[in-house]
Amino acid sequence: MAERTKLYEGKAKVLFATDDPHVLVQYFKDDATAFNGVKKGSIHDKGVINNKITERLMTILSAVGIPVHFLERISEREQKIRRVEIVPVELVVRNRVAGSMAKRLGREEGEPLSRPVVEFYYKSDPLDDPLITLDHIEVFGWASTAEIAWIQQTALRINDVLLGYFASIGIHLIDYKLEFGRLSQNPATLVLADEISPDTCRLWDMKTGKRLDKDRFRRDLGDVAEAYHEVAFRMGLMNSPGM
Amino acid sequence: MAERTKLYEGKAKVLFATDDPHVLVQYFKDDATAFNGVKKGSIHDKGVINNKITERLMTILSAVGIPVHFLERISEREQKIRRVEIVPVELVVRNRVAGSMAKRLGREEGEPLSRPVVEFYYKSDPLDDPLITLDHIEVFGWASTAEIAWIQQTALRINDVLLGYFASIGIHLIDYKLEFGRLSQNPATLVLADEISPDTCRLWDMKTGKRLDKDRFRRDLGDVAEAYHEVAFRMGLMNSPGM
Repeated sequence: MAERTKLYEGKAKVLFATDDPHVLVQYFKDDATAFNGVKKGSIHDKGVINNKITERLMTILSAVGIPVHFLERISEREQKIRRVEIVPVELVVRNRVAGSMAKRLGREEGEPLSRPVVEFYYKSDPLDDPLITLDHIEVFGWASTAEIAWIQQTALRINDVLLGYFASIGIHLIDYKLEFGRLSQNPATLVLADEISPDTCRLWDMKTGKRLDKDRFRRDLGDVAEAYHEVAFRMGLMNSPGM
Repeated sequence: MAERTKLYEGKAKVLFATDDPHVLVQYFKDDATAFNGVKKGSIHDKGVINNKITERLMTILSAVGIPVHFLERISEREQKIRRVEIVPVELVVRNRVAGSMAKRLGREEGEPLSRPVVEFYYKSDPLDDPLITLDHIEVFGWASTAEIAWIQQTALRINDVLLGYFASIGIHLIDYKLEFGRLSQNPATLVLADEISPDTCRLWDMKTGKRLDKDRFRRDLGDVAEAYHEVAFRMGLMNSPGM
């Protein structure tokens, strides 16, 4: 195997080039960060688990017609993906109040929302990913009006798929982050990119309310790796619930 | 004259009851605050000037068919207004990038916007008036969908009127805050409320770029009272440009 070219290293993942200019390898690290990199740590086998969880969820979404960047998992920590230019607008889809929404708007965590709410954030570490409006996206040209309309509509479809899937394994999907990208091979085509995992979702056990996601790391709740493992176990990706 | 009942005292104004339950007196103070009350001071005769500027601008808006709470100016610092329940959503209408938009989104102050942008903020001192989206307003019930659609449309009409008026006196209207209220006499009717003044607008001289607004106070630029006076002079409300 030839030496690979590292194209990008983020907080939780690394992207490598392949022989095909339109295909990359996405490598999942165990590194965990929170509060825009202020808090740093590591979660045992997180990379392995998130690689598998992302594979499973992207495969389900693809099966119902959502275009995704995911191609195939090729090792414990790696998956092949289609190369994209990431749209600099992150989405947060919320089914209940939690996290920054609770804090910014003075609401209780866990408050149900009468319908899913899609929020947009400008992807910028120096600016700490500020909340933005559709007008901001349009006037500053971060995405076209047609793109953002498609993204918003697609996010609501994704939400129905993921809500139902997680409900089937006893988990409330509280909120999560989504990123979209324009295919390098055809920038007119948008696909779901990045990952979907306990790093990027809030997942609460339906019976106990236990948090099975990165909030255990952010808030020092303990049992961090165990929670990630539990999600993978319920998804049929691990043989045992414990570790 | 009977002793008046004070109903509300804000940072820059006081509201008093009148014999008519649907009419209040709005009294303009010289007090100035910034950064949610962290910076405090006073601007000489600001109350007198803002009372007159608000009277003039509300009268112009009323003349073109915008419903307003303003009834009549009754003294140097007082005007009669229709009593309203304030909608807890503040609007900021922006024609150029400035202030919090520049800071939050990493843009240059003075950057022109391809079209006016209307932002919504949740009116809450403890939460520091966070930026919100249309979805937030709807799911948390701060205004109905019909109300907010009317408010947004009306804000854009107000913007055209004010942009043109200020241009006619050599002033760029960069951005400004608006508040709306439901009439106590008929809560189904929304009207423009609060004030429109150099306290609530960014006003830049078209030739020199000099700031003729509260940023002189916020940013310690000096000549604060003189700038307010200059705006009133250009509006024909004062006899001399200086003091």
